[in-house]
Amino acid sequence: MTTSEPPRSREQRKQDVLNRLEKDEDAWVATASATGEPHLMPLSFVWEHGTLLMCTRRTNPTLRNLESGDRPVQLTLGSTRDVVHITGAAVLIPTPELPSASAEAFAAKIVWDPRDSGPSYTYFRVVPQRIQAWREANEIPDRDLMTDGVWLV
Amino acid sequence: MTTSEPPRSREQRKQDVLNRLEKDEDAWVATASATGEPHLMPLSFVWEHGTLLMCTRRTNPTLRNLESGDRPVQLTLGSTRDVVHITGAAVLIPTPELPSASAEAFAAKIVWDPRDSGPSYTYFRVVPQRIQAWREANEIPDRDLMTDGVWLV
Repeated sequence: MTTSEPPRSREQRKQDVLNRLEKDEDAWVATASATGEPHLMPLSFVWEHGTLLMCTRRTNPTLRNLESGDRPVQLTLGSTRDVVHITGAAVLIPTPELPSASAEAFAAKIVWDPRDSGPSYTYFRVVPQRIQAWREANEIPDRDLMTDGVWLV
Repeated sequence: MTTSEPPRSREQRKQDVLNRLEKDEDAWVATASATGEPHLMPLSFVWEHGTLLMCTRRTNPTLRNLESGDRPVQLTLGSTRDVVHITGAAVLIPTPELPSASAEAFAAKIVWDPRDSGPSYTYFRVVPQRIQAWREANEIPDRDLMTDGVWLV
């Protein structure tokens, strides 16, 4: 709860968020079952077309929680003292329907190609609806950078 | 998915987990509403009596999701490449019922005393039921260190 730096402008935060989305490899991904059991797992991602492209086993709780459709997901990047917080909707993508350029971009960044790992691996995209960014308590105001899928700055 | 270090023994992982619980300040805390909306937020904690003591506003989604009782919580420490993953049960603690030694330990570590911040702040403990720790893919086996609230090593 101590603060050392002045708060960043929203414009600066948006740029910082976009930098993280380009460069970070992993996100903490929180989903929930229909009956309210939370699930938290780190997953690698590629930022493209304004979405986070991810992949995991269809049988893992993350995808079991998302496959019923229109289920929200929350994910974070960065450290607990440099938070990028995203609420979004997930869209599952059958591997044959994923453009090969996207699959190649994923394999190149993550150094792992799910297409070589058997049919249980399923791609999905998280489409951000809300994005917030804050570091310390003095950045709680103005932490909203996107609402309803639209950047505010 | 690349691996550079050999996998740690379970005994080493337990020691590493206990070190993090002593020294880390924050955890990523995932809860869910009864209707399956996930919520992910960083919160500071103190490890004492085998539990994580935390505090947030009663009106925040984390506590709204937990106050109905017996609701599971998942939390993580560390980076996405050095994961400590805890599934637990949450117990809310009315401030007058928290031992003053615990409140003092919280205030000393977090450099913030919720008792000075008004009645909306509520302490709670997360009692671990399952603890896992892994770094890279080669540590996925043997990642279970605690099940049903009992250390396996």
